[in-house]
Amino acid sequence: MAHHQFQPISYYHTLGSHEPVLTVASGDRVSTCTVDARGYDAQGVQVTERGNPMTGPFLVEGAQPGDVLAVTFERLWPNRTRGWTRAAVAPHVLEPGYRHEVTDGGQVQEWAIDTAAGTAELVQPPTRLAGVRWPLAPMLGCFGVAPPRGQALSTATASTHGGNMDYRGFAAGVTVYLPVAVPGALFFLGDGHALQGDGEIVGTGIEISFDVTFSVALRPGPAGEWPRAENSEWLMTAGNARPLDQALQHATTEMLRWLEVGFGLDASSAHALLGQWVRYDVGNVFDPAYTIICKVAKSILRQTGVAVS
Amino acid sequence: MAHHQFQPISYYHTLGSHEPVLTVASGDRVSTCTVDARGYDAQGVQVTERGNPMTGPFLVEGAQPGDVLAVTFERLWPNRTRGWTRAAVAPHVLEPGYRHEVTDGGQVQEWAIDTAAGTAELVQPPTRLAGVRWPLAPMLGCFGVAPPRGQALSTATASTHGGNMDYRGFAAGVTVYLPVAVPGALFFLGDGHALQGDGEIVGTGIEISFDVTFSVALRPGPAGEWPRAENSEWLMTAGNARPLDQALQHATTEMLRWLEVGFGLDASSAHALLGQWVRYDVGNVFDPAYTIICKVAKSILRQTGVAVS
Amino acid sequence: MAHHQFQPISYYHTLGSHEPVLTVASGDRVSTCTVDARGYDAQGVQVTERGNPMTGPFLVEGAQPGDVLAVTFERLWPNRTRGWTRAAVAPHVLEPGYRHEVTDGGQVQEWAIDTAAGTAELVQPPTRLAGVRWPLAPMLGCFGVAPPRGQALSTATASTHGGNMDYRGFAAGVTVYLPVAVPGALFFLGDGHALQGDGEIVGTGIEISFDVTFSVALRPGPAGEWPRAENSEWLMTAGNARPLDQALQHATTEMLRWLEVGFGLDASSAHALLGQWVRYDVGNVFDPAYTIICKVAKSILRQTGVAVS
Amino acid sequence: MAHHQFQPISYYHTLGSHEPVLTVASGDRVSTCTVDARGYDAQGVQVTERGNPMTGPFLVEGAQPGDVLAVTFERLWPNRTRGWTRAAVAPHVLEPGYRHEVTDGGQVQEWAIDTAAGTAELVQPPTRLAGVRWPLAPMLGCFGVAPPRGQALSTATASTHGGNMDYRGFAAGVTVYLPVAVPGALFFLGDGHALQGDGEIVGTGIEISFDVTFSVALRPGPAGEWPRAENSEWLMTAGNARPLDQALQHATTEMLRWLEVGFGLDASSAHALLGQWVRYDVGNVFDPAYTIICKVAKSILRQTGVAVS
Repeated sequence: MAHHQFQPISYYHTLGSHEPVLTVASGDRVSTCTVDARGYDAQGVQVTERGNPMTGPFLVEGAQPGDVLAVTFERLWPNRTRGWTRAAVAPHVLEPGYRHEVTDGGQVQEWAIDTAAGTAELVQPPTRLAGVRWPLAPMLGCFGVAPPRGQALSTATASTHGGNMDYRGFAAGVTVYLPVAVPGALFFLGDGHALQGDGEIVGTGIEISFDVTFSVALRPGPAGEWPRAENSEWLMTAGNARPLDQALQHATTEMLRWLEVGFGLDASSAHALLGQWVRYDVGNVFDPAYTIICKVAKSILRQTGVAVS
Repeated sequence: MAHHQFQPISYYHTLGSHEPVLTVASGDRVSTCTVDARGYDAQGVQVTERGNPMTGPFLVEGAQPGDVLAVTFERLWPNRTRGWTRAAVAPHVLEPGYRHEVTDGGQVQEWAIDTAAGTAELVQPPTRLAGVRWPLAPMLGCFGVAPPRGQALSTATASTHGGNMDYRGFAAGVTVYLPVAVPGALFFLGDGHALQGDGEIVGTGIEISFDVTFSVALRPGPAGEWPRAENSEWLMTAGNARPLDQALQHATTEMLRWLEVGFGLDASSAHALLGQWVRYDVGNVFDPAYTIICKVAKSILRQTGVAVS
Repeated sequence: MAHHQFQPISYYHTLGSHEPVLTVASGDRVSTCTVDARGYDAQGVQVTERGNPMTGPFLVEGAQPGDVLAVTFERLWPNRTRGWTRAAVAPHVLEPGYRHEVTDGGQVQEWAIDTAAGTAELVQPPTRLAGVRWPLAPMLGCFGVAPPRGQALSTATASTHGGNMDYRGFAAGVTVYLPVAVPGALFFLGDGHALQGDGEIVGTGIEISFDVTFSVALRPGPAGEWPRAENSEWLMTAGNARPLDQALQHATTEMLRWLEVGFGLDASSAHALLGQWVRYDVGNVFDPAYTIICKVAKSILRQTGVAVS
Repeated sequence: MAHHQFQPISYYHTLGSHEPVLTVASGDRVSTCTVDARGYDAQGVQVTERGNPMTGPFLVEGAQPGDVLAVTFERLWPNRTRGWTRAAVAPHVLEPGYRHEVTDGGQVQEWAIDTAAGTAELVQPPTRLAGVRWPLAPMLGCFGVAPPRGQALSTATASTHGGNMDYRGFAAGVTVYLPVAVPGALFFLGDGHALQGDGEIVGTGIEISFDVTFSVALRPGPAGEWPRAENSEWLMTAGNARPLDQALQHATTEMLRWLEVGFGLDASSAHALLGQWVRYDVGNVFDPAYTIICKVAKSILRQTGVAVS
């Protein structure tokens, strides 16, 4: 169970079958860092092009298509004192033809991040939010494995391999389960947000470089068709598609598959339980694929004898 | 400030400009009851046709188009000991072509409701949920005012007037703000659910007849274009449309209008605040119009000087 | 087989179970007229409120729920010399955030209609279309029967009962088949367009009052679940919903039902035939419900022994 | 102006920045062939994996990002005597929950292709289509250039670079205009259909290997944001996205850009002209991105002085 310290010197803007930067074994832990969505690192230096540059890929020894790659986010934390956001809710999140007065002409808003106190404050331009310090809720906007069939998919989008889901629930303490599509799995991560509302509706969270510690574990399949995840409270599945209706179909169906095939719950019980207890969260509604998270509380599952951890 | 006791003897299956059953004044309180979605009352007797029969309409004296009707749900509670649900997640909520083994052939599932203890248990047919008692979370699935321009809209659907939104957050303690479209407003309510997951994905919550106490208050406009609501913690707006993307556009735009026009927050602050703090909940994804709720925590708004109650 | 001459004096803005203006028998022909979408008649006088006012409803003696009402459009022709359009493609038909310079501030564009020559020319404001005369292609934007369950649906929208479909293929020579939902069927018509592109993307065709002659015939059910139609060349089905994907699902499924249940074609042949020969047209993408038309050429059907007329 | 004869020996299953198979100059013509969607060639031998294998990429000397690559399809014709289709309309094209009796269990249907007479006949399994010979209408389902930013996109999908659009209008006589994103453009083509209905609703046209002759020409930008095309009768733009509503937004906006920026038509005239004359066709509604084609007749454009060829 090695603990690797990895300092990236190159970045990818697609998730694909790229040259791995480090080989790790199932059970290993990795401490590394990620640049922000425009390629700026912990020192505020632009070290690569904009567009959600990824740290990685990390090759997991022995991973084969059909396996499940479990990645546990142990620590996610900003590693500098300035973050940024866009200023305006995106037009496609608002009623067509709705006009507002907020200009978003390439200028970004600046946030002061107090990494010790764990707070963020909007410092530029001046708004009525000035002086308000909000607690950080760090999360990874984009991570995933290499997709199948030789694809190299932009870090702007998301699909069955993970990608740019921008879900605020993908925070420290979460284990994600990704379907391995290529030998070695090839895990990528980046796009840290110090704070983010649902939907990433201004096109950003508070974008910032991160220190990240994660561990990996290989599990036998069958893998899910879509990303799965859990934390101490919830089982979660992610559907990534447009429109949101389709994302919700994928996430819901994946939860049924997980409960039935993964945990052995009979179909009737699974449907009845979801009917009264399912919860949906909204990942990004900004990028080419939107994200819906389907959740069920572990406490509810335990009541019906489902052997969640 | 009268407190009316009203026992319905007729029901409507559309929200429209129908003959009022009771005239009330702004500030009045009404205690009444609602039948379940198939028209069964507190005694388990079918007193009207199925399809979300509505109690009402209640005419509010002096209400004029352009006004806001505020309705506060003071008490919502099942008034009998048997509820029912459908058995299967609806096909349009699952991946096209996904096959499952749950049949939903007109048969419903029966739940034992302990109205004193406040619990529900699935008693028929036997599943692994047998013996599990879940806490009630009563909510109204369908309520609203008469829509404009002579329309009579089915209680199966929802629009700017309210309607069948099936949002579990529409519970006791909530005040909803509806745009008055016809003289007297004409408020309807029904479709009580003892418990319901997000999305109403099996097509029902635990359907049951309710005792309801609500109060009404007229407020001057401008009214929202879509339903608004609040409770002690949240401001909420509802968008009702397909696909979910469009429902989300309406709900988000309505929240901006409320913050800016209603509370006087400048546009830049409103966009920045929503960007990092907006929350979305999913009302029904079962009926002709889907529902997205856009929420902002009052605690966050107060930090920026927004004068929420 | 009476031929009724009917001059309307009142109009409806919803399709619902309204008082009939004339009772006709199956086989009868009616000659009447319709006002334009803003309520202006053949003399250019506003005789009712704007919003697709309907002529009718016409009660068809003996029509019962479950029957099919066949309506043949024998003649549709503008009855005045001025029509109007809106100036700008609607924002929801264009990419979100796309800005153009065309203002559509309540002003309309005026078209000179030569009803004898059958041409239209944009005369106000001046554009590069000035002097160009286009051939008329008159069609009815909105028609249908009273919907079920006491609903009164706005003439802005469309559903299983017909309504505001704005399909340029609903022209003279077409017979439409509508599912009767209430005794007497209650047929409405209006919203004539002298010319219209696909999608009604500027929110109008060339809006104008019409002279209309149509005949009605009752047929035994089973009726389609969605409107069906035919002309000399095509079988057509209409799906009315958002998004277009759902409208297309309804239209395609309805065509399968028609071919299989209506014409007795086996499922395998029906699927194979549609796979290589289906055609889709786009009705309006402007109004609350969008319209997709699914078409199959009668010539292709005849080759497989389907007994189309 | 060289005429290259190119016999492929390798194929790609993504459109990406792959090693070119041939370098050509602007103005050159290429005669080559394509395998069918399952990788079978003119001899009926499987020479590569299934999934729309592409012939190419062809590097066009001097092409730079921002340029336009014009590709004219001069000849598209099946080069063997057997084609195949799937048997069933896809579930996502039909109403959710609709059940039909057509099984599509990996088995395909076989069609006899008479390349001299230009006809297709369904020969296996037996249906009522047996004996019917339909005229071929050969088209290319998938073609495009390498996308930007290092992406390698599956030949199952489509985007701004082209890809799997499955539009029956992409036939001989058409010139397509693609936005060059990488040096050399890198043009790919494949997925020939001898015949196909709108929407590719059974998931295939009549799939078959093709002989193809095309010519390429470089044009200075600005390129369109989405694929453009023309034939003798029509200007066409393609939008590729889900839902169809979004595909239609892209296609319509791209047509406005083309008319205004490309042809110098003023915005008011462009909107008015599209309003009354736009036509929409439906490419595939089967694959991850759906395709809508926006068309305007050249004859109409010429009337307003637009200098189409």
